[in-house]
Amino acid sequence: MISRVLSAELPRHIGKRVTIAGWLHRRREMKSVTFLIIRDRAGLAQVVLSAPAGAQPPAGAQPPAGAQPPAADATEETVLQVEGLVVANPQAPGGAELTEPAVTRLSGPVQPPPFDLYRPALTATLPTILDHAPTTLRHPQLRAGFQIAAASAAGFRAALDRTGFTEIFTPKIVGSATEGGANVFSVDYFGQPAYLAQSPQFYKQAMVGVFERVYEVGPVFRAEPHDTARHLAEYTSLDAELGFIADHFDVMAVCRDAVAGMVDYVRERARPAMQLLTATLPEVPAQIPHLHFSDAMELISAATGEDVKDEPDLAPAHERWLCQWAEREHGSELLFVTGYPLHSKPFYTYPDPERPRYSNGFDLLFRGSEIVTGGQRLHRHEDYLKVLASRGMDSAPFGGFLQVFEHGMPPHGGFAIGLERWTARLTGAANLRQVTLFPRDLHRLSP
Amino acid sequence: MISRVLSAELPRHIGKRVTIAGWLHRRREMKSVTFLIIRDRAGLAQVVLSAPAGAQPPAGAQPPAGAQPPAADATEETVLQVEGLVVANPQAPGGAELTEPAVTRLSGPVQPPPFDLYRPALTATLPTILDHAPTTLRHPQLRAGFQIAAASAAGFRAALDRTGFTEIFTPKIVGSATEGGANVFSVDYFGQPAYLAQSPQFYKQAMVGVFERVYEVGPVFRAEPHDTARHLAEYTSLDAELGFIADHFDVMAVCRDAVAGMVDYVRERARPAMQLLTATLPEVPAQIPHLHFSDAMELISAATGEDVKDEPDLAPAHERWLCQWAEREHGSELLFVTGYPLHSKPFYTYPDPERPRYSNGFDLLFRGSEIVTGGQRLHRHEDYLKVLASRGMDSAPFGGFLQVFEHGMPPHGGFAIGLERWTARLTGAANLRQVTLFPRDLHRLSP
Repeated sequence: MISRVLSAELPRHIGKRVTIAGWLHRRREMKSVTFLIIRDRAGLAQVVLSAPAGAQPPAGAQPPAGAQPPAADATEETVLQVEGLVVANPQAPGGAELTEPAVTRLSGPVQPPPFDLYRPALTATLPTILDHAPTTLRHPQLRAGFQIAAASAAGFRAALDRTGFTEIFTPKIVGSATEGGANVFSVDYFGQPAYLAQSPQFYKQAMVGVFERVYEVGPVFRAEPHDTARHLAEYTSLDAELGFIADHFDVMAVCRDAVAGMVDYVRERARPAMQLLTATLPEVPAQIPHLHFSDAMELISAATGEDVKDEPDLAPAHERWLCQWAEREHGSELLFVTGYPLHSKPFYTYPDPERPRYSNGFDLLFRGSEIVTGGQRLHRHEDYLKVLASRGMDSAPFGGFLQVFEHGMPPHGGFAIGLERWTARLTGAANLRQVTLFPRDLHRLSP
Repeated sequence: MISRVLSAELPRHIGKRVTIAGWLHRRREMKSVTFLIIRDRAGLAQVVLSAPAGAQPPAGAQPPAGAQPPAADATEETVLQVEGLVVANPQAPGGAELTEPAVTRLSGPVQPPPFDLYRPALTATLPTILDHAPTTLRHPQLRAGFQIAAASAAGFRAALDRTGFTEIFTPKIVGSATEGGANVFSVDYFGQPAYLAQSPQFYKQAMVGVFERVYEVGPVFRAEPHDTARHLAEYTSLDAELGFIADHFDVMAVCRDAVAGMVDYVRERARPAMQLLTATLPEVPAQIPHLHFSDAMELISAATGEDVKDEPDLAPAHERWLCQWAEREHGSELLFVTGYPLHSKPFYTYPDPERPRYSNGFDLLFRGSEIVTGGQRLHRHEDYLKVLASRGMDSAPFGGFLQVFEHGMPPHGGFAIGLERWTARLTGAANLRQVTLFPRDLHRLSP
């Protein structure tokens, strides 16, 4: 392994000679001095060349075996290794810079990148940025979003690991397109028809019968014919499901802890990324405020004059209004809306025992939009038969799923967080594609 | 949430009244006493009924709201909640049992399960077991394998998180079937041809240019026409890739730490599951012994009399022989084999600079078979063009991948661990299907 320190660690080594390695992020030629800005996974480091960049290393310094000729004409994105003396400089990134450098080229670019990755923001259009994702993602600002996503996923898992959840890996190729009907991708499965899973819903419910508490972090697939900033054909779903609940409020408590875990991990692991994006973390209250759907609709009707009391769901504008309300009334950027009308929810949703028009389902709103959907599920076999009959749905395609409920299932529920939606809210990205490494949509299948 | 203690926690509550909840695993009627064995996610608990199981709860005990009638005739897999006094009993599972119980039925089975889940081993054939996976997975022995798999995945991530890796989520629907050629699944992507990713190989290499060190835990898809115990159409791949290496030995060092992390997590988190399967963990040496492919072939030839020196790969029997050799010579259940012949490896494999017939690739063998494949990759654009030309491969389908190397890539390499293969080796499962929640193969697409 190349023995080196990271850019962010330079201030700890002032007065010592160290080696750094990374990409030539920017080369700035001044009259008497040239600066090389080196980018590595931790950030940027400034190297001061007092002689031209191609100067030979000081006597005694050994270039690594197999190294290419010194970096006399190194252009941006050349991979360099630099040995030098760390000197304090409040003007340099991190407050320290590398002087008296010996520069070695590890791997040269064949072509200059089509973008000035060193500019504070990439100036290309989103489609162009996405077309060149392997290169444009090197931009520190673009990269930052994914460091935040990674920390979020880790925080989700850690919160659930602490409370007895088991991670599961369920199949993505499924035999029947039961859940969503139309928006499924077809797969040729050894000549048989098959589909890509739209969610691990049925599997995670079944696994409550085995592990009681399960989660999965994995891809889900929606053949979304909509070409909007909010829809993708493939995204990462953070799914959880748990048994032995009283009702959906128990699920919401676990959901709250999962979100708190995500926030904690982003704070600990992705602080520089958050700073780079000037993004802020929400406070997660010990109890996230909650509001029943019918009360939400009354509030909105009263405030806006618009009569929305009979609407089956919240429109995007309503979600934004409610988030402002929660911030004003409860000082919270997070708000649970509970009790969505039963007929607007999937068939496996548990009805509110007191008001069966409404469900024991919930959404979690954050900064103007829904980031989590969850709820209590039916757990009795007869309830499934009844609801399928009342909705005029054929129970045959659900045969395997229904079997699960023939053999004793506890009251249970769960939720799913869209990782990209969460990350977009956290970072202020206007389009989900900005926080998806290689997005897939109606028009995009590569890179 | 139902307030309860877990079966495994009973010994800590001796002399106190507690509530447990779970599935009626077994009902044993004796002359004067009936035992209910309750299964929860942590194990089994014994409940002693001195009166018939349907007896009313003692005065003062309140059945939970909405509970069904008492469990007079509860059959196996009924979901029960039991309040009672914890009493020490060396004969009971865990050394404690619940007496003076008040039993409440939370949810009854509609039908008895088609298997006696309480028997030490399920007697059905593997296809039958897999057909009824949601039920058969409730068997403690079957369930245990997945608790071990979950702990392994967590240990993999923890080991890499500690050393600067970023988790990535790469697309599973891809535009070209570049890597493996024939064994890919086709997807109808909004009318366009697309494929399911056989590995995140190209994406993880590209992301070394962004994050330097990346890993992914996710599904990979192989349209395997082979119907064997070693092949599945979908499995979970633990993938890692890192830059700024000297050669493949740096990758092997990281791989060693990842495997050590997996072992540590299984030891900490899945001890009861390992005990239930009477499975043992390997010692992971600080340096796993390694052997060059050519030396391995000479050893095998010398030992067996068979001339294998010109074979391009290790046969399963050779892998078994080498594992025995490593155990005998090095006291290690793990063995790296390095330097597989270059022509038998994928085009992106880095050649051994000293002996270009051989590669800087490696496998990790464990208990008789390969569980990891990895190596150093090419990182120079011109090397990719050369190797594609020399193999007579058209470079056009690799356009997007090759672009990555036009803009400066450090020396890098990586590896992939098949989670199911690893778990099978650890638990002694003869067939990968026993350690895959819902396996997919030539003949199996459900449940």
